[in-house]
Amino acid sequence: MNNTQRTVRVLTQRPYEVVIGPGVLERAQAFIERRSGAFIVLTDENVEPLYLEGLGLSDKERVLTVPPGEGTKSFEHLERVLDFMAAGGLDRASFLVALGGGVIGDLGSLAASLYMRGVEVVQCPTTLLSQVDSSVGGKTAVNLQAGKNLAGSFHQPCAVFADTRTLASLESEEFRSGLGEVVKSALIGDKELLARLEGETIALLDRDPELLGEIVERCVGVKRAIVERDEREAGDRKKLNLGHTFAHAIERVAGYGTVPHGIAVGTGLVLALEASQQSGTLRDGTLPERVRRLLDTLGIPVSLPVLRRRYDVALPGEDLLDAMRLDKKGTAGMPRFILVAEIGEVAVDCELEPGLLAQRFE
Amino acid sequence: MNNTQRTVRVLTQRPYEVVIGPGVLERAQAFIERRSGAFIVLTDENVEPLYLEGLGLSDKERVLTVPPGEGTKSFEHLERVLDFMAAGGLDRASFLVALGGGVIGDLGSLAASLYMRGVEVVQCPTTLLSQVDSSVGGKTAVNLQAGKNLAGSFHQPCAVFADTRTLASLESEEFRSGLGEVVKSALIGDKELLARLEGETIALLDRDPELLGEIVERCVGVKRAIVERDEREAGDRKKLNLGHTFAHAIERVAGYGTVPHGIAVGTGLVLALEASQQSGTLRDGTLPERVRRLLDTLGIPVSLPVLRRRYDVALPGEDLLDAMRLDKKGTAGMPRFILVAEIGEVAVDCELEPGLLAQRFE
Repeated sequence: MNNTQRTVRVLTQRPYEVVIGPGVLERAQAFIERRSGAFIVLTDENVEPLYLEGLGLSDKERVLTVPPGEGTKSFEHLERVLDFMAAGGLDRASFLVALGGGVIGDLGSLAASLYMRGVEVVQCPTTLLSQVDSSVGGKTAVNLQAGKNLAGSFHQPCAVFADTRTLASLESEEFRSGLGEVVKSALIGDKELLARLEGETIALLDRDPELLGEIVERCVGVKRAIVERDEREAGDRKKLNLGHTFAHAIERVAGYGTVPHGIAVGTGLVLALEASQQSGTLRDGTLPERVRRLLDTLGIPVSLPVLRRRYDVALPGEDLLDAMRLDKKGTAGMPRFILVAEIGEVAVDCELEPGLLAQRFE
Repeated sequence: MNNTQRTVRVLTQRPYEVVIGPGVLERAQAFIERRSGAFIVLTDENVEPLYLEGLGLSDKERVLTVPPGEGTKSFEHLERVLDFMAAGGLDRASFLVALGGGVIGDLGSLAASLYMRGVEVVQCPTTLLSQVDSSVGGKTAVNLQAGKNLAGSFHQPCAVFADTRTLASLESEEFRSGLGEVVKSALIGDKELLARLEGETIALLDRDPELLGEIVERCVGVKRAIVERDEREAGDRKKLNLGHTFAHAIERVAGYGTVPHGIAVGTGLVLALEASQQSGTLRDGTLPERVRRLLDTLGIPVSLPVLRRRYDVALPGEDLLDAMRLDKKGTAGMPRFILVAEIGEVAVDCELEPGLLAQRFE
């Protein structure tokens, strides 16, 4: 087994490095120990027994372990994290280490952005989804009753350590969820990545660590380029939400946590490509079928009927339409979509004709 | 009665205007109506019956009225405001109007900074304290169990309308609380203001609207200059916390809401000046006595014993010392102080000899 470690530099207002590869948690440990500030580690009950030791932390008083799952992205837990930081005597020179998946990263970085109006956060993502997407770019969030990620901030991490060894322990559903975001990254900015995914599905599903390191690097590269141009999502960054208007509606109507985020994104990609085709935006007519075939091979539902069966949820079309009206991408009740012309060419803020939209939800 | 309206421009990263004077709530109304975005108004039960109408809003569905007082600066109410924004269908082009004192301004602007990762906030401060201090500069916050303002963000308003007519209705305790911050502003940056205050205490306590307009303008001017240099409190902005290490400890140990913030700041100014003198930092030796006399005339306790009697609180010295250790200005358990050399010359991040500190708390 090769041990290639890769580094991507993200040149946001405050630049930072994303270190990727097998064993980089050891480098995270060294990074944390070098710093003089006090810190806490936020992790969840699944991750703690597996990887906390890898971070070399024996002092359990510094560790806050929360329940796994989307339900933890709540105000209740946000306040708990902040109280824990205060109880630990953290000051403005302190930092928070987020060890876990997207929920831990989003919650932990929001807490860091709020504590004393902002302390630093070190991201140690342990899921494919958080390694390829949520740990990079500085978006933080918790959910409101009314919708996912409706409360949050922009707060770039000071470093990201994506240890691809941790991907071996993911449940296959969780791993597949990350693959949904990987396919999204390929569609919005990396033609070669899409071809690699199509050509190496077996190695991918075997979680070949070398291949995974390369894939994480490529996805972070796509995200980095977009985030550098538009750190606070004034325009271009919306591209990263390809498939997400559909996905957020699916997740909400199914009940948060029922359909994993990246799975919903995968299905959302198919819906977005079909809408792109029907609205005349799509130039590369081979994409819907290519993406459907790829996602199907990866085990991600390629249509709403398949998704409904797989997760045993009703997902009525009307409810999905309602849910989309409050999506952050919308303005004044009109849902907005990201449509695809070809790989790397994506249009944001698109409206869809209501009839066409309803058809997508059959 | 003269109707002078004054405007201070704050040239932060995103510049905005602070409009000051009798009747400027009407201009707030025009400003709000011109904008296309949806909005909500956050106010409290004291302010709503007095000034909501002045804002020309008949649509009660847009108004969230919360209980008055420091207890409202909580996570519970923050979530309530955010849920209300979502229920009102607010999107990224929407905004929040904060109509009230410091609690409403801090809570509302934090909610605005978090909703969909940031929408705009219009500040309509209705207390002297919020007009001269908290509505300008972009600090937002709620309290944690462990301390005041421990969770928050930096989020500049898009406009501030400080209607000095609203000051006529303040209870005298609330008005005095604002005067504590006025004296602070004079000390850190406006020699002439201190002289005006000393020379016109009677007109001031009569709440002469013309004089109040000028005072608010001067205080905003002091704050503006400092905030422009250091928007996110990396250094210079800490000056604005003169007296606050003492004040936050007093407020916390007395129980939040027992001693009004600006009153605690006033007493804190005396303690900070005495510490400045004893530590040899003070050059202008006339200041402690001048400030003591001014504050006393304004009805603000000029020593801890007076404060203890007035509010019937024990405030043990040991408890005050403990409380200071978690103040945001501190690092690793060592409280930091802002000391004064002369008007306009203030040193931040000072440590005080423990013996000297204990003496201040007798």
